Formats: sequence, C-alpha cells, structure tokens
Amino acid sequence: MQLERRGYVKAGHWTPEAAVEHPEAVRQLHREFLRAGANVIQTFTFYCSEDKLEISGNVKSITGSEINEAACDMAREVANEGDALVAGGVSQTPCYVQSHNETEVKAIFKKQMDDFMKKDIDFLIAEYFEHVEEAVWAVEVMKTSGKTVGSTLCISPHGDMDGVPPGECAVRLVKAGAEIVGINCHLDPLTCVRTVKLMKAGLEKAGLKAHLMIQPLGFHTPECNLGGYLALPEFPFALETRAMTRWDMQKYAREAYNAGIRYIGGCCGFEPYHIRAIAEELAAERGFLPPASEKHGLWGAALEMHTKPWVRTRARREYWENLLPASGRPQCPSMATPADE
Amino acid sequence: MQLERRGYVKAGHWTPEAAVEHPEAVRQLHREFLRAGANVIQTFTFYCSEDKLEISGNVKSITGSEINEAACDMAREVANEGDALVAGGVSQTPCYVQSHNETEVKAIFKKQMDDFMKKDIDFLIAEYFEHVEEAVWAVEVMKTSGKTVGSTLCISPHGDMDGVPPGECAVRLVKAGAEIVGINCHLDPLTCVRTVKLMKAGLEKAGLKAHLMIQPLGFHTPECNLGGYLALPEFPFALETRAMTRWDMQKYAREAYNAGIRYIGGCCGFEPYHIRAIAEELAAERGFLPPASEKHGLWGAALEMHTKPWVRTRARREYWENLLPASGRPQCPSMATPADE
Amino acid sequence: MQLERRGYVKAGHWTPEAAVEHPEAVRQLHREFLRAGANVIQTFTFYCSEDKLEISGNVKSITGSEINEAACDMAREVANEGDALVAGGVSQTPCYVQSHNETEVKAIFKKQMDDFMKKDIDFLIAEYFEHVEEAVWAVEVMKTSGKTVGSTLCISPHGDMDGVPPGECAVRLVKAGAEIVGINCHLDPLTCVRTVKLMKAGLEKAGLKAHLMIQPLGFHTPECNLGGYLALPEFPFALETRAMTRWDMQKYAREAYNAGIRYIGGCCGFEPYHIRAIAEELAAERGFLPPASEKHGLWGAALEMHTKPWVRTRARREYWENLLPASGRPQCPSMATPADE
Amino acid sequence: MQLERRGYVKAGHWTPEAAVEHPEAVRQLHREFLRAGANVIQTFTFYCSEDKLEISGNVKSITGSEINEAACDMAREVANEGDALVAGGVSQTPCYVQSHNETEVKAIFKKQMDDFMKKDIDFLIAEYFEHVEEAVWAVEVMKTSGKTVGSTLCISPHGDMDGVPPGECAVRLVKAGAEIVGINCHLDPLTCVRTVKLMKAGLEKAGLKAHLMIQPLGFHTPECNLGGYLALPEFPFALETRAMTRWDMQKYAREAYNAGIRYIGGCCGFEPYHIRAIAEELAAERGFLPPASEKHGLWGAALEMHTKPWVRTRARREYWENLLPASGRPQCPSMATPADE
Repeated sequence: MQLERRGYVKAGHWTPEAAVEHPEAVRQLHREFLRAGANVIQTFTFYCSEDKLEISGNVKSITGSEINEAACDMAREVANEGDALVAGGVSQTPCYVQSHNETEVKAIFKKQMDDFMKKDIDFLIAEYFEHVEEAVWAVEVMKTSGKTVGSTLCISPHGDMDGVPPGECAVRLVKAGAEIVGINCHLDPLTCVRTVKLMKAGLEKAGLKAHLMIQPLGFHTPECNLGGYLALPEFPFALETRAMTRWDMQKYAREAYNAGIRYIGGCCGFEPYHIRAIAEELAAERGFLPPASEKHGLWGAALEMHTKPWVRTRARREYWENLLPASGRPQCPSMATPADE
Repeated sequence: MQLERRGYVKAGHWTPEAAVEHPEAVRQLHREFLRAGANVIQTFTFYCSEDKLEISGNVKSITGSEINEAACDMAREVANEGDALVAGGVSQTPCYVQSHNETEVKAIFKKQMDDFMKKDIDFLIAEYFEHVEEAVWAVEVMKTSGKTVGSTLCISPHGDMDGVPPGECAVRLVKAGAEIVGINCHLDPLTCVRTVKLMKAGLEKAGLKAHLMIQPLGFHTPECNLGGYLALPEFPFALETRAMTRWDMQKYAREAYNAGIRYIGGCCGFEPYHIRAIAEELAAERGFLPPASEKHGLWGAALEMHTKPWVRTRARREYWENLLPASGRPQCPSMATPADE
Repeated sequence: MQLERRGYVKAGHWTPEAAVEHPEAVRQLHREFLRAGANVIQTFTFYCSEDKLEISGNVKSITGSEINEAACDMAREVANEGDALVAGGVSQTPCYVQSHNETEVKAIFKKQMDDFMKKDIDFLIAEYFEHVEEAVWAVEVMKTSGKTVGSTLCISPHGDMDGVPPGECAVRLVKAGAEIVGINCHLDPLTCVRTVKLMKAGLEKAGLKAHLMIQPLGFHTPECNLGGYLALPEFPFALETRAMTRWDMQKYAREAYNAGIRYIGGCCGFEPYHIRAIAEELAAERGFLPPASEKHGLWGAALEMHTKPWVRTRARREYWENLLPASGRPQCPSMATPADE
Repeated sequence: MQLERRGYVKAGHWTPEAAVEHPEAVRQLHREFLRAGANVIQTFTFYCSEDKLEISGNVKSITGSEINEAACDMAREVANEGDALVAGGVSQTPCYVQSHNETEVKAIFKKQMDDFMKKDIDFLIAEYFEHVEEAVWAVEVMKTSGKTVGSTLCISPHGDMDGVPPGECAVRLVKAGAEIVGINCHLDPLTCVRTVKLMKAGLEKAGLKAHLMIQPLGFHTPECNLGGYLALPEFPFALETRAMTRWDMQKYAREAYNAGIRYIGGCCGFEPYHIRAIAEELAAERGFLPPASEKHGLWGAALEMHTKPWVRTRARREYWENLLPASGRPQCPSMATPADE
C-alpha cells in the first residue's frame, strides 16, 4: 500500500512488478523498514502467482518468476546491509476459490517456492489466507523445502471463511508443519491480537507448540466483521482517517508482546515510522534502538526546543499516550457500515 | 514530514541534513514527486540557515553550505530525469524574531542564496514567513540574483502575525520584486485558497500583477486560527486522522485552478499520490497524465476487476466524490480546541 | 426521568413522592402518555419499597403506602379518561443485594402488592430486576393476588448479573407464573429487542408460552455492556445527545413487532412523543391513531406549508428515515468508555 | 416545542390553540417553568396573529382573540401562584414579507395588543423578528399601550436579513421606544450572547441605554449561518442530539450574566430543568434557589448515595463541568451542512 501511494503499484491489482520495473523504489522501502528496526525483509512478491498476474493483465512482458527472483535478490541485498533475515511469501490463489483442486493449487505454490529456493532465502511464509484449508496446502508444499515455515491467516476472532475457529485453524497449521502461526491483514492490531490469543489457546489445549506471529493493518477498523476492511466504504482509497499513530503502534506492540507474540510486524497501512514505533516500545526487550531512532526523540522529546511554548509541553509520554486525536472532519461519521453486514 | 515518517528527519528540528547523510532517501522522494507529475523540484533545504542549524544542535560536522550544495545537485539530477525546474528556497529565520535587525537577517538570506547561485538553480522561493516584513527582506535579497523570485506566507485569511491583511501582504511582496506570490503551510487547502483569493483581490485593487502560488497542508484543519496547525493538540505526531484523501486533493486542485492559481503544490502532509491527484485533476489543462498514473486507474477504475462485488461498485467518480470517510475512532472528537484560542 | 426534568423527582433517589406532593404533575404526564396512545397506565410507584424510601431519606412524613395508594388512584382516574388498563409495579429491592433473604424480600413485595390490591388495579408487573432470582420471588408473591403478572429484567443479551442467559431467565419467570415476560431499561431499544428474542427462543425450546414485553431506554447506548447505561460517563445528567428521535422509535416499534413482541413500551428517556411514534408506526396493526396524532402530521407532513422551501422538501418519509442527525458537538466523541469495561 | 413533544402543538404550524383546547397542559408547563425559577410567564400566544392562524388552517372555530385572552388568563393565574410578571408577545407576521405595508402590519400588531390590554398584562415583548424594520413597527405599536416594551430579534452576529448589523438594530429598537432589547431563537446560547454583546456595543457607541435580554435555542448549532437552525437538516424533528445539558446551561447563564444581560431565558428546546439550571447558576446573584431545586442536588450532589461506586464519584462540579458527552451515534457526523450555505 505504501508503494501504491509512492506511485509504483496499482490498487485493485496490487501485483508486484515494481520489483523489476522500479527496483530503486522497492529497495528504498526495504531500507527504510530495515532502518526502522525490522529483523525480517519479506520479498516483494505479494499476489505473484502466475494465475493472479494473468487476471490482472497489466504486466505484459514480465513473468512471475522474473519478479520473484528480482525480489529475492533485492531483499537479500538490503538484508545484508543490516542484520536481517529474508522471508519469501506465498498467498491465497484465485485458483483455490474457483476450483478447490488441491493438485492445481499446490502446483502454483510449488512453482513460487522453487523461485525462492533458487535464491536461498532464510525461511518461508504462507500468508493472507481466508480459508485455513488452502493455507494448510501451502504449508504442506513449503515444508518440502526443508526451510522453516510460518503461516498467517487474514481472519477475524470468529474464524475463517468456512467457520473454522482460530484455535482450530492454528492446530491444523501446526500439524501441517508450520513452526510459526498467526494473523495478518484485514483487521486492526488489537483485534488481531485477540485472534492470535485464541490461536494460542487452541494450541495449548491441543498440547501443541509454535511461535506466534502478527501482521495487522495499520488502520482502525472497529466496526469490521468477517470480511475485514475490504467491506469498509473507505477501502481502498479513503482509509487515511483510519491510520494509526506511532503511539497507537506502541500500545499495540506492548499488547502483542504481553500476549506472548514474538514475531510482531505489520501489513497494509504500515509505514516505516510505525515499525520504528514497535522497535522503540520493545527496545528494552530487544536490547537496542533501531538506526532510525537517531531521528526520533522518544515520546516526542525533540519538541522540548520548539519555538511555541505549548508545543514544548508535548515533549512527554503522558501527553501522547492520552491524546484522543480529532479527525478535522466534522461532516464525517466515526464509524461506517461495512458492506458485509 | 514524509522524510520524518521514512526515518530521516527529526520532528521538532526539521533540519535537512539528510541531503548529505542519506542522499538516496532524498533522491527517491524527489523522484516520486517528479513521477507524480511535479514540474518543480524544490531543493531539500528547509530551515537550513546557519542560525537555525546551530539551535537544533544535532548536526555536528556538516555546514549549511554543504547541505545546500548537496541538495541543489540532487534536485538538479532528478529534475533532469524529467522535465522539471529546480527551485531554491529560503524561509523565516530565528534571527528575525529575536533581533528584527534587517542587516543581520538579510545577511543570512544572502549566504543561502549564494549557495544556490553557485549551483545555477532555475528560480528562487522565499517561503514559510509569518511576518510579511521578513518575507519582503528575503525577496529584496533574492532579487539581487537576477533570478525569478516567488514568495509564500504561512498566514491565514486574517492576515500575518502583525495583522497585515493578505491583500496588503501581496502588494508589498510584489512591490519588493516577487513575480509569484501566495500561501504555503499552516492551514488546509481550501482555507489557503481563500487566502490566495484575498491576495489576488489586493493585487487587482492596487493595479498590480503576479502569478499566484499555493502550497497548503495535506491535513484538514477546520478549527485552526492564526497560529495554524501548530496549535492543534495533534501537532506534530498525531495528525494521521486529518490526512487528506486523493479525492480531497482533486477537489482542492480544481478550486485552486478556478481561483486563477497556476502554481499548485503542497506542503507538510503531502505524499506523492497527493501530487498525482492534482496532476490527474488538471490533466486536461496540462495536456498529459503523469508517469505514476500508469499505476492508478482514474477515479478508482482499477477496482472494476476486484474479487468482491461491492468493491467493484466503487470503480466510479460519484462514489469517491461523495464519500464521507469514517475515522474508525469513535472515542475521538472531530474537532480539537487549538492552543491559541 | 421526565418528571426529573420537569422538576418533581430527584435523580439519584428517583423516589416517587411526587404522587402525593404534586399530583397535578404526575396526572398530566399520565394524560400525555394516554393521549399519545398508551393502553396501559403504570402506577407511579418506582422504587417505592419502604426500604428504598428509608435509604433515600428525603421523604419525611409520607409512607410508601400513602404514595402507592395515591399513585393507584391517579392512574385509574387517567386510565378511565381513555380506554387503558392500570398496572401496578414492584422492582428490585436494596434488601435483596444485602441479605439474599427470600422471606424478607418477599415480605417487601407482599406489602407493596397489598397496597395495589386495595385499589383494584388490573394487573401486576415485576420489573427492573438485575437478578432473575429476585424477579422469580417477586412473581411468586404477585401470583398470590390472582391477577395477571408480567415480569421484565434490566439485563443485556449476555444474561443477568449471575450469568443466567436470557432464554433461561424467561423459562424461570414463566415457570414461576409470569404470563408476560421481557426486558426493561438499561439498554437501547434494538439491543433490548435482541435480548427479548433470546428469551423467546428459550421459551420455545422449553415448550413454554408467554406474551413478550419490552420497555427499553429512549437513548442510544451502543457501547454498553452488562452494567447498562449506568456505566456511561453521561449517566444521569448528560444523556441528552443520546436521545432517540421519533423516527428511531418507529424503527424500534417495527422491529419489536416483527420479533413477536406485543407489549411495546419504553422506560427512562421516553417522552410522550416517543410513545406516539410507536402508536403511529403500528396504527394499521392497532386499527387507530392516538389522539395526539391530531397534532402531528405523519412523517413530517405538516412541513408542506412551511415558509422555507428547503423545509417543505422534508415533508416525506424517505427524508426522515434516512437522516443521520449531527450532534452539533464537534469537540465530543461519538462513543464513551463505560465505567464497567 | 415542549408542547409539541407533549402532544398539543403541531410542528410546522406551531399555532397556540392548545391554550383553549387543552388549558391544563399549557397551565402545567407554565407551572413547571415558574417552579424552575422563572420570573416572567410569557403568554402562550406565539404566531397568533389572525393572518398566521388562517394560513395554518387547522384551527377552525377558535379565533385569535379567544386564544390570546385564554392565554393571558392562564399566564396570570400561574404567575400569581408565585411572584412572576406576565408578558404578552407579538412576533413577525406573514403579512410583512408579502406586502411590506406598514399600515397593514401595524394593524395586526394593534389587534393582538388590544387583546393583551383587555387582560392587563405587565409588559409587552415584540419577539422573533428577522427584519429589524418590522420589529420597529411592532415596538411603535406596543409603545402606544403605555406598557414597558421589550424587543428581541432572531438574528445572527452578522445582522438581520437586510444586512443591518446587530449594533444598528439595537439602536433602532431603542429609538423606537424599546426599554429591553436582545436576541431570541434561531441560534445557540453562546452565539446569541455574542450577538447581544454587539447590540450592547452599538448602544454604547450611540450613547443609548437599554436592558439586555436573551432567549436562545436550547440546541447546539455551531455550523449555522444567517438562516439559523431552520437550515439544519435536523430541523424540526431530529434535533434531539443537539440538546443542551443542564451544565451547558449553567455555562451559558454565567456568560450571559458576565456580558451584562439581566433578562436571561430560553426559546425552542428549553425544558423546565434548563431554566432551573440558569436559576441555580445565578442563585447567589438572585438571592434564592427556585422551588424545583428541592428535587435537584447542585452539581449532582444527590449521586453521593448511588449504589454504583463509579456513579458516586460523579457527585461533584468538576466532573460535570468537564464532561464531553458522547452521542452514542457513531454512524452520524458531528456537524451538518446547513441548507442555506
């Protein structure tokens, strides 16, 4: 979504041809996240299955493999500038919904994985699945690589699109071989933390163990249901007013950490300063501040030397923690009616 | 503000040492704005007078001249990748408020101008002045360069900090030699359009002529008074919910154009896609769409092929023009009480 | 709550000594509800157990019996002006929470009931109970009168204060002898309809039958939990902005009717025009409009002759049904954080 | 507006036939205002010129004189129960807008005044005028009675419908003979206080003296312009969420008093407890609390004995003074777009 706003990705398609077309833009964004404190650089390969690229139809002469390979090289290049791992990701396929054919869907995942394996990435993530069944298939394919496999679903506390509750989803993913499980996208951070807690409880009940992972939206979505933020009238071109502040992010990072989650990240709506906020909140636990914190006074400390006296009074934690920011839009409501209600 | 969020600029100081420290980040941002349709690349030299850099104190071994020169080179490099002009800018000095000493203040402007002149920029802008008197001094210095000079004030429709009304401000700036006058920063687009209209009326009444220019905030600030958005409780770290959408920007571009303004840009809060929105709104008038529009269906056209039927219904102008986006923050107000009220 | 606003009842105590002190005020309010279409006049005897009156301590020389008897006479007098029934009500006692002593609590109900029986009221209601156990005790006492007995709880869809779910509550009340069961107070109309539906489902599952009844708040309380509106920061002196419109009431009346509820009324926050709105929505079902509709054009019809042309356009159902009324309070949030969260 | 909600007045027409049809309802409302601390009972004769009654057409066999006389008797009866004066009021006529004929318009006022004079009321008010010219005519007629005459306009700080500024309006009214001048209706209390201040300044500049009077709406209308609340989408049937609390009223009473206004009242949207709030705020200045304060603990004092501990903490001034009440309507905006914008 950041690259859409920077002018390199088309909303609606969301396909990642920029990795080939404008590598400098993708590289720069990777760098900013690294600098903000990221430990993992995820290859810029979202929605990069061949069947998805075909449907989108706006990428003519570039193949999925070309994109995947260029994306891997770039992620590795930036990761090596710091101390980060590179993760390759696959996500839900149009094929699954249309055919439900396990062989076909798995073949698509296999092809993407083979691209990743040529490039020796560090681990694999099967992410953004609405149906746990498809995620299980993806994990099963990924496991054949011998790499560590994580898997995240884009579901709500009510469960996946087939009504499988989060705890049961987690159990199925771990049984399929996932070492890391969790939630990504579709809903706001605190809702996703609740869902991951349900996954954790499900695993504990089943006597299973896995690392927990979370990559929520960077938007407030209190009124969303199963369909997530896709059902909001503001999706995808008027989500600005829902954007989280850095202080919202610190609160989220703490909640996620307290819930036992150790792979804490973000999805649509996250900008580099949001990741920095997570790194700053958890600086004591991690033992260091990220490079980008050189340009950030903690809790607004740099405002102490501002010319306006009232701005100087904002150079403290209590101020920002308790602020209820106004929208500046008095003709607008504070909650929408989701389309799937 | 964008580079603050990307991790390269410190809020509170806002000084531009990134031009030297992280040129790739500044270059990339310039490129994104160029790609979004910008005709002018402004050198990344805000608040770069020596007196301001000293106060900020966080830039040790780099001088203002080094920053200014590096910034000029980089702006020129990116401008030449397209068809843009390079503008060098000076802005209000701490010295003015402290001393009111014309000689000292002018010497500061002269020093910055000399840096620009070494690098052969295309024109000069004296911007972000709260007192028209200081802006006049800056214009007087800039005029000695022989270059075209523009000047913008960060004032409200009520006038500058000394109570000089906008029309009178415009007259003074044009008499001092400015060929372009207008407004930048501090208030939201539609408020700034109102102020520029008052400047235009003042010029017409005085029988003077000048090009009109506008670079407003990318935030909604309906409750702000003289002090602008600095007085909002959300400044500077919780302005997210006030951010304008691309559709807000199209409306602004049209209003500005209809008001006779032909130098239409943005200030704090603007991201590349906001500039693209202006370029798209005025594509017929300019005769072309910007490069970044390759990755943007006009009025959401690319949503036509979205998987969710309700999202497909959003692929039309009426939908986005009339949407009143919800904040997703029901515990928050829609307007704040500014600190200067 | 209406009589508090009219100056005759003390908020916090809510005791009904006005029946003796200012009978003309109580009589007038009864009349207004009758005129608005009410079929039942409930005696003005809320919180009129001797133990509650003692605690309140602000009623010196009047006994509970005196109040109860005066209230019965007045209700009968007004009911006979139209075609309404008189219902006598008892509600939860401080004694229950303190002692849990069935004998003591039942003695209190017995005393109130005896007052009612002296006055030959038409039927009895045991209302405003947070614990179904106490409501069952009240119903058991009331049943000894030989009169029809209704019972309402002030609980949420999550159940009573002891965690007994609504369906189970309904079963217990009907088994104790209640012929009418339902919900009153504490939450907004649509939430209360949901709770009554759960009661209905519980009865059906148990093979039991009863009439359904509902008397919700006249306020919007979307954020409330178990504790109801008592937990809102606005309770009880700043609830104005939550007040329902007549159009909200018509929607509620329809929803309640569609849910199979046939005893449809209101509690705190209801004014005569709210009851009229219910009567107007259900005019076809009841076969008549109430007397007060002489002074009310349906769906704003009387605006057709207004002097302002834009007001004339509001004389139609679509306008009022779809209006999203603004609060006029841009510094205020749209949802609060309840104290019991 | 209160009697509309009680079922006795038709919105749109707003004619006062209830004085004859349902005297007990009008009498009770008078009594409640007296009990709340009112010093003046205004006859219930709004819009009771013959020409207005004819247009409304829903009052068949009752004449304006009958209503006026019945209204006077009732106001006197209630005023004598306490220590209040009776004021008779005339207001703008349809005739003025249609004909601008001074003779005809004055004849209408004369006829109403003659009704009042038969009944020996204490003083006269010419109120609810949008054009100062018509108000001046009314004052000129009223002055012939020999009674004290007050006059209020329903205008904004920008002036009357012909652009006459408030200060000039006040001067004209005082020169015509008004001993009390001010503002009523159309806008919220704090806006009306601002307008009265402008009237006061106009009088002072002209070396004139008069008592100041104010009777604003009981609604928040921050977005209204010249046309007042008639232009709000919520007018007249969805104004609930804009209603002022008792605490808003105390703030208003203090502001009005500090502005030098000594005739402090209310118009549409006022209920008895709003008048009581004014009386409580100004109890020290007036030397007494109103009778209805027996049923009202100042600043929520009666909550001290509430059963819920968190409600008990609300028994103090700071709590209610600083509360920002939530609307409970997250789908609704906080400001509307007035129809006259």
